[in-house]
Amino acid sequence: MAAADYLKSVRDRDWEELESGTLRIAMISLGWWTREQAIPAVADSEFCETTVLVSRSREKATAAAEEIPTVEAALTDEEFADGEATDAYDAAYVCTPNALHLPYAEAAAEHGKAVLCEKPVESTRERAERLVEATADVPLMVAYRMQTDPLVRRTRELIAAGAVGDPVSVHGSMSQQMQETVSGDPDQWRLDPELVGYGASVMDLGIYPLNTARFVLDADPVSVTAQMRSVDEAFRDVPDQYAAFTIRFDDGTQAACTASQHAAYTGHFRVVGTDGELVLEPSFLGQPEGTLTLRSDGRRFELDDGRRDVMRDEMTEEFDYFADRVLRDAPIGPDGDHALVDMRALEAIYEAAETGTTVSL
Amino acid sequence: MAAADYLKSVRDRDWEELESGTLRIAMISLGWWTREQAIPAVADSEFCETTVLVSRSREKATAAAEEIPTVEAALTDEEFADGEATDAYDAAYVCTPNALHLPYAEAAAEHGKAVLCEKPVESTRERAERLVEATADVPLMVAYRMQTDPLVRRTRELIAAGAVGDPVSVHGSMSQQMQETVSGDPDQWRLDPELVGYGASVMDLGIYPLNTARFVLDADPVSVTAQMRSVDEAFRDVPDQYAAFTIRFDDGTQAACTASQHAAYTGHFRVVGTDGELVLEPSFLGQPEGTLTLRSDGRRFELDDGRRDVMRDEMTEEFDYFADRVLRDAPIGPDGDHALVDMRALEAIYEAAETGTTVSL
Repeated sequence: MAAADYLKSVRDRDWEELESGTLRIAMISLGWWTREQAIPAVADSEFCETTVLVSRSREKATAAAEEIPTVEAALTDEEFADGEATDAYDAAYVCTPNALHLPYAEAAAEHGKAVLCEKPVESTRERAERLVEATADVPLMVAYRMQTDPLVRRTRELIAAGAVGDPVSVHGSMSQQMQETVSGDPDQWRLDPELVGYGASVMDLGIYPLNTARFVLDADPVSVTAQMRSVDEAFRDVPDQYAAFTIRFDDGTQAACTASQHAAYTGHFRVVGTDGELVLEPSFLGQPEGTLTLRSDGRRFELDDGRRDVMRDEMTEEFDYFADRVLRDAPIGPDGDHALVDMRALEAIYEAAETGTTVSL
Repeated sequence: MAAADYLKSVRDRDWEELESGTLRIAMISLGWWTREQAIPAVADSEFCETTVLVSRSREKATAAAEEIPTVEAALTDEEFADGEATDAYDAAYVCTPNALHLPYAEAAAEHGKAVLCEKPVESTRERAERLVEATADVPLMVAYRMQTDPLVRRTRELIAAGAVGDPVSVHGSMSQQMQETVSGDPDQWRLDPELVGYGASVMDLGIYPLNTARFVLDADPVSVTAQMRSVDEAFRDVPDQYAAFTIRFDDGTQAACTASQHAAYTGHFRVVGTDGELVLEPSFLGQPEGTLTLRSDGRRFELDDGRRDVMRDEMTEEFDYFADRVLRDAPIGPDGDHALVDMRALEAIYEAAETGTTVSL
């Protein structure tokens, strides 16, 4: 019965302590990710509700509000900054271009609201530090949805339990055809250094294997190497249409990663240890039939947790985890300090590629 | 019927032109790989025969010869160098520690014999250049068994046919617990810089993803980065108990690789392109049920060519390919110049780790 019990509990929320309650969310802003992933995920959630919509465009906010019965207020950016309708929400989900996270998080903190901020937390290390400082008095969580993904949590547990021996190497890849996948905006902000920060692929995609490795290893990066290239005209202002990089962690594990905003929609994650290996595939991109495979001593264990709408499920888990922590006034796992470690690593990866050196953190 | 035809022809020898003939092989020397892999593979082969055994120890050579009916002569190293029994063999298979490839290849070439030399071709770039020079007048092939592995050849064909679009990224990992896997020799030469060359893991294992990437992409390395560490006492004289490295190729593809002589017995190989990805897993280590997976546009194609004793099969293919080329006096694919490109890349990978810089080739 052990196997059946394990399979049955694979998706249990090992983090959940809250019994009831509702965290009312202001959605900032209304790009495709918010509309197609975050708002539906909150609708599925147990402890969250979308009550406020914030957009540059009043028309867009009002039109979207009409489709969501729980929404109490549709605000422009200025109205949000000015503190309108602060009675209608408890927390802000900041899902703007990277370099706009700071002003929205700052405004939310001024209104005394908790902040769930998309990753990377800002466009540069300096701006990220300002954001963390500005939100010091409110709960801040950075939206690493992998950290509440059940299969990633099982991976972390298996590693901690010694299932692969001592971790030695990590492989992580993530790529998409950004211009096709990320719909809508022809003036794609991920290609604009002013909005995206250091670059297009490692900032947005490479951060997944980086942060997932940190989470499952419980380790932090200490040095990095990188090679990057941009070829197509659309990528002329960023260095990393294609990127390959290595990361050494403080437990000695070394990762080899690739990321590209101009390749097939695919991702995988692998941890090799002295006694076995763990593979999550596909991973990161919410593709169905994600499988966790453990190989050790010629034996193989495969786990499919049955999710088919993986991205939405991950977002639901993330929002409920956030609510669980905020409503109980409990410490939040991926907080601002955690995110700053990634920002330093991202800065170092771009510096390594630009200078052709190994960069220590 | 196309699928059935494809499956049926998956293991066809697309390289074979020879109709009959026998290449008589002198086996140098009689370590575990020669005894457990090479000699059985030659016994399975169509065009090769083991006729001479060469060992430091006359007793070892004589005892081994008694078990192999095709053997005509058992020689000591000195007797081989002095040109004894040259009528009994046409080619020498050099499977010694890396830094001994040169004297044996040199002697074989002096006797006018073809040379099949294990990889890496020598311990350093300089010695490899001397070996290639010394064998200039005889056929020289370097024993990259991946290049005659049917699934690797199908991978190369699929890439050339555009199955993944333009290749963008490669991932390759290979590791083993060397002290357990490579049996017998307590004074393990792979840990001795005088015999192994630059290091233990990238020289012996990292060369697999490096060379396989070159072969399937039809591209050569142009720059590398690397991080390495050695922790255990046994690895004190080599820098790479664990290694992670990146390689940029001249077609723009970038690879992220890991290699370790002190981790689980496992390997994988992946090519991500603009339109899809190809994964060979497990790979490199001769594990059964090796599968080639092609993913593109949400579709998946999986190919298992049915081999269960993969390593021996790869070696049989390699020996027959070698015989096909030598007996027809035809050019050989992985020749000395091809192997020198790897030696320059290996030297650069170790230099990159030591100096903390990106090294251009």
